[in-house]
Amino acid sequence: MSIKAPEIPYKIYLSEEELPYSWYNMRADMKVKPAPLLNPATGAPMSAEELGGVFCAELVEQELDNDTAYIPIPREIRDFYKMYRPSPLVRAYCLEQKLDTPAHIYYKFEGNNTSGSHKLNSAIAQAYYAKKQGLRGVTTETGAGQWGTALSMACAYLGLDCKVFMVKVSYEQKPFRREVMRTYGADVTPSPSPTTAVGRKILEEFPGTTGSLGCAISEAVEVAVSNPGYRYVLGSVLNQVLLHQSVIGLEAKTALDKYGVKPDVIIGCAGGGSNLGGLIAPFMGEKLRGEADYRIIAVEPASCPSFTRGRFAYDFCDTGKICPLAKMYTLGSGFIPSPNHAGGLRFHGMSSTLSQLYHDGLMEARAVEQTSVFEAAELFARVEGILPAPESSHAIRVAIDEALRCRETGEAKDILFGLTGTGYFDLTAYQKFNDGAMSDYIPTDEDLARGFAGLPQVPGQD
Amino acid sequence: MSIKAPEIPYKIYLSEEELPYSWYNMRADMKVKPAPLLNPATGAPMSAEELGGVFCAELVEQELDNDTAYIPIPREIRDFYKMYRPSPLVRAYCLEQKLDTPAHIYYKFEGNNTSGSHKLNSAIAQAYYAKKQGLRGVTTETGAGQWGTALSMACAYLGLDCKVFMVKVSYEQKPFRREVMRTYGADVTPSPSPTTAVGRKILEEFPGTTGSLGCAISEAVEVAVSNPGYRYVLGSVLNQVLLHQSVIGLEAKTALDKYGVKPDVIIGCAGGGSNLGGLIAPFMGEKLRGEADYRIIAVEPASCPSFTRGRFAYDFCDTGKICPLAKMYTLGSGFIPSPNHAGGLRFHGMSSTLSQLYHDGLMEARAVEQTSVFEAAELFARVEGILPAPESSHAIRVAIDEALRCRETGEAKDILFGLTGTGYFDLTAYQKFNDGAMSDYIPTDEDLARGFAGLPQVPGQD
Repeated sequence: MSIKAPEIPYKIYLSEEELPYSWYNMRADMKVKPAPLLNPATGAPMSAEELGGVFCAELVEQELDNDTAYIPIPREIRDFYKMYRPSPLVRAYCLEQKLDTPAHIYYKFEGNNTSGSHKLNSAIAQAYYAKKQGLRGVTTETGAGQWGTALSMACAYLGLDCKVFMVKVSYEQKPFRREVMRTYGADVTPSPSPTTAVGRKILEEFPGTTGSLGCAISEAVEVAVSNPGYRYVLGSVLNQVLLHQSVIGLEAKTALDKYGVKPDVIIGCAGGGSNLGGLIAPFMGEKLRGEADYRIIAVEPASCPSFTRGRFAYDFCDTGKICPLAKMYTLGSGFIPSPNHAGGLRFHGMSSTLSQLYHDGLMEARAVEQTSVFEAAELFARVEGILPAPESSHAIRVAIDEALRCRETGEAKDILFGLTGTGYFDLTAYQKFNDGAMSDYIPTDEDLARGFAGLPQVPGQD
Repeated sequence: MSIKAPEIPYKIYLSEEELPYSWYNMRADMKVKPAPLLNPATGAPMSAEELGGVFCAELVEQELDNDTAYIPIPREIRDFYKMYRPSPLVRAYCLEQKLDTPAHIYYKFEGNNTSGSHKLNSAIAQAYYAKKQGLRGVTTETGAGQWGTALSMACAYLGLDCKVFMVKVSYEQKPFRREVMRTYGADVTPSPSPTTAVGRKILEEFPGTTGSLGCAISEAVEVAVSNPGYRYVLGSVLNQVLLHQSVIGLEAKTALDKYGVKPDVIIGCAGGGSNLGGLIAPFMGEKLRGEADYRIIAVEPASCPSFTRGRFAYDFCDTGKICPLAKMYTLGSGFIPSPNHAGGLRFHGMSSTLSQLYHDGLMEARAVEQTSVFEAAELFARVEGILPAPESSHAIRVAIDEALRCRETGEAKDILFGLTGTGYFDLTAYQKFNDGAMSDYIPTDEDLARGFAGLPQVPGQD
């Protein structure tokens, strides 16, 4: 019950002045740059002009910029960040004690804002550039709803119209997420919908469909390109998103540096890669420049194992196959995790930047099964007082495993992981776990072969 | 969009060393003490022995202690507090700008923990004393679920059994709250239940009943007194709860003192009074000792107006009439707010301590209607980035009204209010508001007369 007096506080809060003034762009320090996006029709790299029809101009610049290491955070975005940042870096004293480990565990907690996750860091940036460009609004898709909520909040703040296509099954099963977005003034449409050509076509072909992220992307892009003053925005995968999310890692590093702590292991969950890419950014920078070494572990669900069992190949980012091709670790754009999968991180591919880093041996990856993830989540909730998002709990799982290994070896390693968000809107999954009704699923090689069969033909593709 | 550089940061975080070492007990400085609890059978003040059959011994001491101003916070509780405290004191720059007011608005935010509210401050204290007394567990009731969640978290941390009776209608309508409690290992029973004598009796009499807080209290108390090693705990109203909640006000005052800010107006929502009593504690202390003056406003729903339209009289704290009598502003223990009321704060009475302070003219009260409360909530969510609990939004409403008055008069008043929690589990109410389906209700004098008719006969009762 009693805990020894810590030299390092339970929570390290930076001052607002210590909030970074620039984002850090890992690509600038990468010897092998991530492969460019390709136009699926021509197989040629996408030009800024081509991308500018879909994305905001300044975001396209960031997307294509492989050279500038530090990109200033505009004053307006930094002011918005101050509403919920710097986020706390927590020393998990209670978890350490519970595990009886000599390891020191730290987590960067991004859930203390109403979007419930780190997604707000990029949402406000993307909304800001849209506003600056004089646009009327933005469109996007959302699955579980974290990204849609974050974007709604950012748009409400800036007075920008926000149209969200929400996967129909989530729209119906997560009415509360939908209400948060509506409270922030967003226009939320269940996808597929009769409001777009692609939606009508899908509804005609599959009248009973409950929708998919790929379909929602298609609808959001259609609305963006066919309405003057609108652009499409995306919450993960893209280089620009990893750039914005670097604020997570920059703050974490500043906080650790204050106490002279150099993490031995850095752990993050990986779906599209936005949180992991943000958390590791400045550490990976040091590693790329040969200034320091860190062990970096990406954690993914065993049921959607893009890093650990995927192919490093050009693929579509969406199941609708209307987006540019990205070179990444992928399970094929047709891959869909088993329906019993409850823990998020269900994207078939992975950020091109992280894929390249992984390919070049600069980071590891580990796949974990969901019952063990929820066991870690429950333990964490009970001792650290935060109900974690299922996504974040993948990182918790591996952090606990590493800490338990330290108990065996007696090593006092410093472990840092990203706690991306809270699980307040994921209680259906927790209920399944509490009821003992959660099961695991690992795709067979045949399952994966079906996904790989859909990889596009691109010159140079293996 | 741009906000001028503040001298005071957006969020004032205290260090962990600045977390209070003692709670402050307002009663010590009150000239007129709150009236004692009475035994309903004898009409005599409840003795420590009588109370000890239901409550933990050390909590009974705190309940009856009208003299000790500062009661040390045990080390173990202070360590737990560090998991989520000191909580931020936020300068609402964005709200001020939106309102175009010269007023300075501050709020103490208690929602950054998984219970979603300030309730955890007393839950950990009550659970700690139960553990220290060597008890096996505690029982309680919960309506919306904030208190039950907080208590589950505290018990999970200390390894104490936690039995929660949850009003059946909430149990069914708020399955997610229930799941949070289950994740924290609590035993959650819908009330009325066949597991208690009083529950069976009620189920027999009213087979279709959806339960009430009064009934859930009766079941929780029955289980506590009939199981060795168990005691009953309560999340509001009691003196001990206000004592524990003083940590809110003590932190707020320390943070404001750092910047030389002396609030002109202090505003809190009031249901049973735990948050308001905690927020105002050290300020009221100065006022009681004649060291300073503050305007203090309690905000309650117009549909449950105990301060503004209730009687100052002895009454039962529960509808089941099994608890001691408390002297308080009350609408009668049989009063039930109209079913269209969505904003919490539905207790028929009010903390005896706050009732006495109000009776003695040391604070004001204001009743507000719920549509105006949700308008304030939505505005606040959009500019401050936090989706507030409906309860907290009562205080937001009046803070906004005061700030708008300052715009008229040109006064740069310092306004402090308590933001007790987040609204993540109240989205059914937000949906009603978003759909334009929310209505107001003010009880008629006849409605109130029916409640007053049920006041008990006590010597000296008006």
